[in-house]
Amino acid sequence: MGVGLRTCSRSRQAVNEFTFIRDLLAPLARSFPGALGLADDAAAFSIPEGRELIVTKDALAEGVHFTGREPARLIAQKLLRVNLSDLAAMGADPLCYFLALLLPASVGDNWLADFASGLAEDQKLFNIALAGGDTARTPGPLCLSLTALGTVPAGRALRRSGARAGDAVYVSGTIGDAALGLKIERGEIACGIAEDAEYLHARYLLPQPRLALGAALRGIAAAAVDISDGLAADLAHICESSGTGALIRADAVPLSPPARALLERDGSLLASILSGGDDYELCFAVAAEKCARAEEISRALGIPIAPIGEITAGGGVRITDARGRDIVLPAPGYTHF
Amino acid sequence: MGVGLRTCSRSRQAVNEFTFIRDLLAPLARSFPGALGLADDAAAFSIPEGRELIVTKDALAEGVHFTGREPARLIAQKLLRVNLSDLAAMGADPLCYFLALLLPASVGDNWLADFASGLAEDQKLFNIALAGGDTARTPGPLCLSLTALGTVPAGRALRRSGARAGDAVYVSGTIGDAALGLKIERGEIACGIAEDAEYLHARYLLPQPRLALGAALRGIAAAAVDISDGLAADLAHICESSGTGALIRADAVPLSPPARALLERDGSLLASILSGGDDYELCFAVAAEKCARAEEISRALGIPIAPIGEITAGGGVRITDARGRDIVLPAPGYTHF
Repeated sequence: MGVGLRTCSRSRQAVNEFTFIRDLLAPLARSFPGALGLADDAAAFSIPEGRELIVTKDALAEGVHFTGREPARLIAQKLLRVNLSDLAAMGADPLCYFLALLLPASVGDNWLADFASGLAEDQKLFNIALAGGDTARTPGPLCLSLTALGTVPAGRALRRSGARAGDAVYVSGTIGDAALGLKIERGEIACGIAEDAEYLHARYLLPQPRLALGAALRGIAAAAVDISDGLAADLAHICESSGTGALIRADAVPLSPPARALLERDGSLLASILSGGDDYELCFAVAAEKCARAEEISRALGIPIAPIGEITAGGGVRITDARGRDIVLPAPGYTHF
Repeated sequence: MGVGLRTCSRSRQAVNEFTFIRDLLAPLARSFPGALGLADDAAAFSIPEGRELIVTKDALAEGVHFTGREPARLIAQKLLRVNLSDLAAMGADPLCYFLALLLPASVGDNWLADFASGLAEDQKLFNIALAGGDTARTPGPLCLSLTALGTVPAGRALRRSGARAGDAVYVSGTIGDAALGLKIERGEIACGIAEDAEYLHARYLLPQPRLALGAALRGIAAAAVDISDGLAADLAHICESSGTGALIRADAVPLSPPARALLERDGSLLASILSGGDDYELCFAVAAEKCARAEEISRALGIPIAPIGEITAGGGVRITDARGRDIVLPAPGYTHF
């Protein structure tokens, strides 16, 4: 088609990506007129007056961000959701997304159908539609990239830079589940209870982007970030951008029952919980006078939030245990290359 | 940084991508305030009132779209330019772009510096800036994806669907150079004159997106496409979208002197010229009463255009030789998987 969603292959393989676009991807673009039916050189659409565009782009590679053994629908959903989590951290309402798929020869029709069905399901859940992109073959492992567009009322985006000393620091949901789930998958830790292992692994496989919470926190949160690199590292990003520090009480960090059970058995897992990453929960700062409103929002949405400490004047993120003693983490989130 | 331009690696390699972002990529975002210094979860910016957004996304994979032996700066520029060519085909003015890099371990500091310098040079040339993205390591070959955003006055985008029977069909520049350049690189054809071979190969390596022409043709061209899959296939896209056919006179298709010399020696190369692709020239339809204006624009911009045939009522693209005999092409552009 050589189109808004373009395909190109010099390897002339048999797998039918032409029908992949026509039968599986074009329906995903039907609800978004700006996609031009995936049948033009690009998408074309207007942004509602008074609203600002929010754009993020994340890529996933087989062997790095996923093993490739996961069901295709979960890979599709993770790809979409890690991007939606960035929109959530900015307080944005989802608008549309663009997809680039570099597919190895091993990917066949069933995989593609499953991949598209994962997108279809999440599009409904998160009120977003496909607007364009590109598919091609690669001799290497599967590589995926997605660009998500959202909007906010102009000037109302949640930024990382608005935190002030004295603000409370909150997180949504529970922290550390994904890092523990990954450790279980890799055989680095054992989890005797099969349901717990499954719960933690599912939290790793399928993030829950906090879009409703992010949007509701516009004008309430002073600063926000989504936790992808690890709570400690991502809170440090707020501190760097805001010119502040932060003090976190480790015992106030909300844990799921499976994570708590593992931590009680092995206290050294605290480092993984606080810095392991892939939580895709929101971490945000709230001025004292707005905390009650933030907690009302949490109740109204049914999305739990917990205060875990406060923004301080000094630089850096300090973490203490229940007795006020400093906890020093071995690594500040993923080492960046 | 886990940021607007996020890095992530689980492989903890030594190559310094943190400084890649800070020292090489962040400067590319300096002229675009909406990039938020590549230091937030996403970019945030407004679209000028009365303008519509144009968005395209193309990916390139090592071993498919480039060999990997090219200088990094040329790979960067090709990645940017194939996307800019889509903006040109829509008549859009460039705004900003988002980058996803999946880098193999073999990519080091010099490569990254060269890659960034290629982007820096093209940003000035095409008046566009980096606004965000993602970098990560991959165990496989280099995979790159770019999302380019542009704008047009609302409702003025050049579409594929506006051609009408009787419109003249034009192309910009010369056709077939890139396909012949690729054939020379692959050793499929010989070119005795070193300068000619170099010229054709350069046309393959480094497309010239026709942004100024595309923007000037708003309101003049009835339909437009950029030629990436091959003249025959891309003109067929206009015909499909417009519900028309087209008749092309092969001898009217503009050729560069090196391409003409090769064709005179081996007439069978005509198929590659008309359907080889990677031209990144514009192909567009113009109603009879606007042809004089299109040719004025071409002269004013110093970008040659040539009428090569006309839009017809019947479906499909028909190509004839100088004596009016049909030319049947063996393959309609790249086989799509």
